[in-house]
Amino acid sequence: MVRIGVVGAGYWGPNLMRNFAACPLTSLAAVCDQDAARLQKFRRLYPGAALVPSLDDLLGLPGVDAVALATPVQTHYPLAAAALRAGKHVLVEKPLAASAREAEDLVRLARERGRVLMVDHTYLFSPAVRHLKALIDSGEVGDLYFIDSVRINLGLFQHDTNVVWDLAPHDLSITQYLLGTPPREVVAFGSCHADAAGGIEDLAYVHLDYGGGLLAAFHLSWLSPVKVRQFILGGSKKSVVFNDLEPAEKLKVYDRGFTVKTEDQRRRVQIGYRMGSVVSPHLEQGEPLQAMVQHFARCVQSGAEPASGGEFGLGIVRILERAQVSIKSAGPRVAFGGAADDPPRRAAA
Amino acid sequence: MVRIGVVGAGYWGPNLMRNFAACPLTSLAAVCDQDAARLQKFRRLYPGAALVPSLDDLLGLPGVDAVALATPVQTHYPLAAAALRAGKHVLVEKPLAASAREAEDLVRLARERGRVLMVDHTYLFSPAVRHLKALIDSGEVGDLYFIDSVRINLGLFQHDTNVVWDLAPHDLSITQYLLGTPPREVVAFGSCHADAAGGIEDLAYVHLDYGGGLLAAFHLSWLSPVKVRQFILGGSKKSVVFNDLEPAEKLKVYDRGFTVKTEDQRRRVQIGYRMGSVVSPHLEQGEPLQAMVQHFARCVQSGAEPASGGEFGLGIVRILERAQVSIKSAGPRVAFGGAADDPPRRAAA
Amino acid sequence: MVRIGVVGAGYWGPNLMRNFAACPLTSLAAVCDQDAARLQKFRRLYPGAALVPSLDDLLGLPGVDAVALATPVQTHYPLAAAALRAGKHVLVEKPLAASAREAEDLVRLARERGRVLMVDHTYLFSPAVRHLKALIDSGEVGDLYFIDSVRINLGLFQHDTNVVWDLAPHDLSITQYLLGTPPREVVAFGSCHADAAGGIEDLAYVHLDYGGGLLAAFHLSWLSPVKVRQFILGGSKKSVVFNDLEPAEKLKVYDRGFTVKTEDQRRRVQIGYRMGSVVSPHLEQGEPLQAMVQHFARCVQSGAEPASGGEFGLGIVRILERAQVSIKSAGPRVAFGGAADDPPRRAAA
Amino acid sequence: MVRIGVVGAGYWGPNLMRNFAACPLTSLAAVCDQDAARLQKFRRLYPGAALVPSLDDLLGLPGVDAVALATPVQTHYPLAAAALRAGKHVLVEKPLAASAREAEDLVRLARERGRVLMVDHTYLFSPAVRHLKALIDSGEVGDLYFIDSVRINLGLFQHDTNVVWDLAPHDLSITQYLLGTPPREVVAFGSCHADAAGGIEDLAYVHLDYGGGLLAAFHLSWLSPVKVRQFILGGSKKSVVFNDLEPAEKLKVYDRGFTVKTEDQRRRVQIGYRMGSVVSPHLEQGEPLQAMVQHFARCVQSGAEPASGGEFGLGIVRILERAQVSIKSAGPRVAFGGAADDPPRRAAA
Repeated sequence: MVRIGVVGAGYWGPNLMRNFAACPLTSLAAVCDQDAARLQKFRRLYPGAALVPSLDDLLGLPGVDAVALATPVQTHYPLAAAALRAGKHVLVEKPLAASAREAEDLVRLARERGRVLMVDHTYLFSPAVRHLKALIDSGEVGDLYFIDSVRINLGLFQHDTNVVWDLAPHDLSITQYLLGTPPREVVAFGSCHADAAGGIEDLAYVHLDYGGGLLAAFHLSWLSPVKVRQFILGGSKKSVVFNDLEPAEKLKVYDRGFTVKTEDQRRRVQIGYRMGSVVSPHLEQGEPLQAMVQHFARCVQSGAEPASGGEFGLGIVRILERAQVSIKSAGPRVAFGGAADDPPRRAAA
Repeated sequence: MVRIGVVGAGYWGPNLMRNFAACPLTSLAAVCDQDAARLQKFRRLYPGAALVPSLDDLLGLPGVDAVALATPVQTHYPLAAAALRAGKHVLVEKPLAASAREAEDLVRLARERGRVLMVDHTYLFSPAVRHLKALIDSGEVGDLYFIDSVRINLGLFQHDTNVVWDLAPHDLSITQYLLGTPPREVVAFGSCHADAAGGIEDLAYVHLDYGGGLLAAFHLSWLSPVKVRQFILGGSKKSVVFNDLEPAEKLKVYDRGFTVKTEDQRRRVQIGYRMGSVVSPHLEQGEPLQAMVQHFARCVQSGAEPASGGEFGLGIVRILERAQVSIKSAGPRVAFGGAADDPPRRAAA
Repeated sequence: MVRIGVVGAGYWGPNLMRNFAACPLTSLAAVCDQDAARLQKFRRLYPGAALVPSLDDLLGLPGVDAVALATPVQTHYPLAAAALRAGKHVLVEKPLAASAREAEDLVRLARERGRVLMVDHTYLFSPAVRHLKALIDSGEVGDLYFIDSVRINLGLFQHDTNVVWDLAPHDLSITQYLLGTPPREVVAFGSCHADAAGGIEDLAYVHLDYGGGLLAAFHLSWLSPVKVRQFILGGSKKSVVFNDLEPAEKLKVYDRGFTVKTEDQRRRVQIGYRMGSVVSPHLEQGEPLQAMVQHFARCVQSGAEPASGGEFGLGIVRILERAQVSIKSAGPRVAFGGAADDPPRRAAA
Repeated sequence: MVRIGVVGAGYWGPNLMRNFAACPLTSLAAVCDQDAARLQKFRRLYPGAALVPSLDDLLGLPGVDAVALATPVQTHYPLAAAALRAGKHVLVEKPLAASAREAEDLVRLARERGRVLMVDHTYLFSPAVRHLKALIDSGEVGDLYFIDSVRINLGLFQHDTNVVWDLAPHDLSITQYLLGTPPREVVAFGSCHADAAGGIEDLAYVHLDYGGGLLAAFHLSWLSPVKVRQFILGGSKKSVVFNDLEPAEKLKVYDRGFTVKTEDQRRRVQIGYRMGSVVSPHLEQGEPLQAMVQHFARCVQSGAEPASGGEFGLGIVRILERAQVSIKSAGPRVAFGGAADDPPRRAAA
C-alpha cells in the first residue's frame, strides 16, 4: 500500500484524492493546501487523511511514501525537488515544470535519489490512446503521414499560463507516446485577446515536423464558441479519428487512402483511391485517471520507469518551451534539437 | 443578353455552361475544347452553341461578348490575355493565374481595354458567406479575433497543382471578402506523400497575420479520411461557425464570449464568461454559381467592377504565391507586403 | 434495347426519363403528358422521343415495348390496365395502385398477358438495403427482434394522398424485402392538421406485428421541423442502423446485444450485455434508380419476375389499405378514464 | 431545516442522499436499507446520519420530518403508506405506485394526514423542460400538434418491471407537465425478448390521444444498439426538439411550419411553408435533482402542493396501467389477411 500525500486542493487535486482513496494499491495519507478553509472541506470526505498547510509539514509526517502535486506549474520545480530530496516518490500534474532546465534538474534528482518521478499525462492511460498505439505498433496504420489535433473551447482563461502550456501537453503527450521520437522542428503562432496586457496567448497553433513528411499540428484555443476534441492520425494503410467528446464511438478506424500506381509515359504518378469500411472498436470503459494512479503505485512498488516518467515529461516541456519562444519571436521557425538553453535559432533554409 | 463562350469542357466547364444557359441575362454562344470527342457531347445539350477546338476559333466567331475559362491554372494567363486583347470580357476559374506577375498583367490589360475581368470565387455568392459578411459589417460580431478553416477530405489529388492552390482559394476569397484587407504576414507548412517525387503538397497549413491579434489559419488536406468544411470566425461579441456540409443549419451564430473586467489590485484582469443563445439564421436557397454568373453578366452590362474582380483575384494569387514560397523555403516566415518579385524575406524578429 | 414510353412529366417522371435515356439496355421512345407546355420542355433534352398527349396516343405508337407510369396513384390502375391490355410491359411508381382490389386486377392482367409488371420501389436497389438484406440472409444478424423507422420532415403536403400512402411504401418495401413475409397484424394512428377538412393525415404511426415478438414500427410525418431518415433493425446477434441522410456512413452494424444466461434458483433469467465494435461497411456508390431501371429492362428481356413485381407491390398496397382503415376507424383503442380493472373498450367513434 | 431519512441504498438512493446532504434546506438524518453491508458504506460519507435496517426503525427515530423512498416500485405503497401514517412527509421515486388504486390510496392518505406527498419526476426540474413549458405557456409555440419521444438504449434490463414502467414515466411526466391534461385514449404495443418467459416487455410503443388532433407517441426500448433521447414537440407556430444527450444545445426552437391559405375554387387548401431561423436558447446549468430536492423541502416548509405531487403522480400511474393493459390485451388490433373490404377484426388473443 503506497501512502500518498496530495498537495493542492484546488481544481484538480480533489480528483487525485478521490482516485488515490479508491485505488486498492494506495491510501490517501495527507492533503496539503495553504488555504485552511479549503483544506477543511476534505476532513469529512477523508477522515483518515492528515490535513497540513505546507509541504514541509507534509514531508515531516511519518509514513508518507509519495507526494502528488496538483499546484500551479511555477511551483512544480521547488515542490517536487523538495519532495525528492526528502526521499519521496513524486507524481506531478502536467506539465512537469515551467522550463526544460527545471525539468532536467528534477529528472536528475529523481535518478540520484532512486525515486520515481512521474507526470500525470492522463491520456496515456485512456483506452482510446492505448488502442491507437497498438494499431500503430502492429503496423496496421502503415507509414504515418500526419497528426492533426483540434482542442478548442471557450475558456478557462488563466493568468499564469497560456493556452499552449494549458492544452498542448495533452496533444504532445499523446503524440510522443505514439511516435516515441522528438520532432525536428517546432514552430508556433499565437495571439492574445482577453489578457493582451499580460501577454497570455489564448489562441495558438503548434506545428511539429518529424521528418519524412510527417507533420503534427495542434490548434489550441480558449476562444472557440464550440468545444472540439478531435485528433486525426493519417497513415498509408489506415487513418484514425479520435473524438474524445463522442460518448460511444471515440475511435474510428478508416480503411481509406490513396494508391500510387506505376508512372505513365508522361512520368506522372497514377493515383487511385481505396475506400473501405470504417470500424469503431469497442474500448474498455475504465477511468484513465484511476489507471494512471495505479500505474504510479506499481512503479513505486517495483521501481520501474513510468510510461510518463521524468524523461517523458521533460521531452514535452522542451517542446512547450520551444513553442513559446517561437510564438514570442513573432517570426521565424525555431530550430529544434539544440541544448535547452541555446537561444532560438533559425533553421537552415 | 450577354453571349458567352466557355473554354474547357472538363470537370468544371459543364457547370458554367449549365448556368450560363439557364441565366436569363446570358446565352451560351460557344463551347471550346481541344478534345473533339468531349466537345461533341455538348451538341445535344446545347444545340445553339458553336463547338470550336481552340480559343482562336472562339475569338473569331461573331457575336461572342465574353469568355469564361475553365482550364488548368497554368493556361489562365495566355488564354485570358488573348481574350482581353480581342476585346472580350473574361471570367476565369479560381485562382486568377499561376503567379502574381501574370495576374497583375491581366489586371492591367483589362483596365487598358476597358473590359470586365472576374474570377469565379463562388463562395462570395453563397447565402451563408453573404450573411456572415452582413453580420460583421453591422458590428454584430464586434472586433474580429480569429478565423479558422478546416477544408479536408480524401483526394482529389492533382498533378499540376498542390493542395494550397486547389483548396486555399476558397478560404482566401472568403477571408478577403470578409476582412477587405490583405494580411501582414503569410506562413505555410506542407508535406508531400502521394506525389513526393513531383513535390506536390497534399497536406498544408496556411497562417495569415492581419495584425491586432487577428490570425487566420487554414488546414488544407487531400489526405483526410473524413471530409470537413468548417469555418469558424471569432469576434468580441459573437462567433460564427459555418459548416458547409450541414444540409440545414450551415451557419450558427454564438452569443458567447469572455468579458474583461476592471483589473484587481494585483493588476490582474478579471475574466468572466458570457453564455447566450445560438441562432441558426434561415438562409436563402439559391445556387451560388447562378448568382455568380448573373453578377458577371450585370458587370458586363454596366461596366461595374465585380465583387471578385481582377484586383480581388490578384490579392489571392499573391497570398498563394507567398504561401508556396514559405512551404518550399522549409523554414522561416515569409514577410508579406513587398513587391511580388522580391525574394522571400525573413520577418523582423 | 427496350423502348420505353414515360407517362407523366411532373415531379418524378423526368428522373425516369433521364435514367431510361442513360441506361444501356433501354431507350426513351416517348414522353406522354396532358400538359402540352410541360411536354415541350423535353423536346430539346430528348429529341429522339415522341411527345404525345395521351396514353392512347402512346399505345398507338409503333415500337414501344414498355410503359413507365409516373402519375398520381389514383390513375395507376386505369393506365396500367390499358397498357397491359395493349401488350406493353409496365413499370409503375410506388405504390402499385390505390386499393388492393385494383392491384390484384393488375397482377392478374399481367399474368394473363404474359407481361412484366413492376413497381418502382427504389430502395430495393440501394446498396445499403442490399447490404442489409445480405447481412440478414447470412445469419449474421441472428433472430430479428424489431424494425423501427423514422421518416419525418416538413412537407411536402399533398392533396390526393396522405402521409402513409406517400412515405410508408418506402419502409414497407424495405421491410417486405428484408423479411419476405407479410405481417400478421397492422395498426395505425394518424391525425390531420394542415388539411383537417380534407381528412388528409400529415402525421402517422404504423405498427406491424410479424409474430414471434418481431414488431415493426414506422413514424411518418410531414410536420417535423427536422428531417430524419433512420431505420433501425435489431437482431439477436447484431443490430443495424441505416441513416439515409448520412453522406458517408449510411450503414452501421453494431455488435451489441444482451445474453441470457441459465436461470438462477429464483427462476430468474440472468441478463448480461455484449458490447463489441461498430462497423460501417463500404457501400457501392451506384444510383439506385439506375439499378432499378436496368432491373426492369432485364426482366422485360428475360421474362423473369422482378424483385418488386406485381405480387410484391400488391403486398404493400394491402398493408397501406389496412393501415388506412385502422386510422379511420378511430380506434381499436383503449379509452381512458374507466376504472383500472375494466376490460379495454373501444372509444366511441 | 427539513430532516430526511432515505430508504433504499441501491442504485438511485445515493443520488438522493448526496443531494439532501448538499441542499441548504435539508439534512440527511438517516439512511435505511435491509442490506447491512451496503448500509455501512455510507457511514464514512455521512457520519451524521443514523443507519437503520428497516422503515420501522427509521420511523422510530426522533427528529425525522420526511422520508424519501428509493426502493422497487412494488414497495412504494406499503412504505409510503406507513410513513404517511406515522406523520412523515414522503418523497417517492417515480412512478408513485404499482397501480392506480395504490396511488389513489396514497393521495387520500396524504390529504387526510396533511402531509406532503411528492414523486421524483426529475425532468420537471430540468432547465430544458422548464424552458419548453414557458415557450408553450407564452403562446410562442401556438397550437400543439404532436409530441414524439424516442427514449431507447441497450438495457438496463430489469426483472420486476418492464420498459414501459421504467422509461415512460419520464415522457409521461414531461407531457403531463406541458399539457396539464390527461389523454383521452391510451394504446400501447410491446414485445418481450430477453425475458420472454417472464413476460417482461423490453420494447414498447405508447400512443396517447389528447383530442383535437394532438397525438403523443413514445418509443421505449432496452434493445436499441444506439442511445437516443429525443423529444420533439410540434406546434402551429414553432416546433422544439429537446435532445437530452446533446451537451451544449439541448433545446432547439424551430421557426418552421406550414401556412394554410384560403381555399381555391376547387375547394382545396393551399399549403405553403414557413422557414425561419433555429434558436438554441442558453439554459441554466443547475442540476435538476438538486432543484427537485429543494422544491420538496420548500413544499414541506410551506405546505404547498408540489409540482409533481400525489395527484400528478397518480395521473401518470393511471396511464402506465392503461398502457400495460393495452399491451397485454394483445390486440385491439386489425388482423391482417382477410379480404380488403372486411371490417377490421380483433385478432385472436
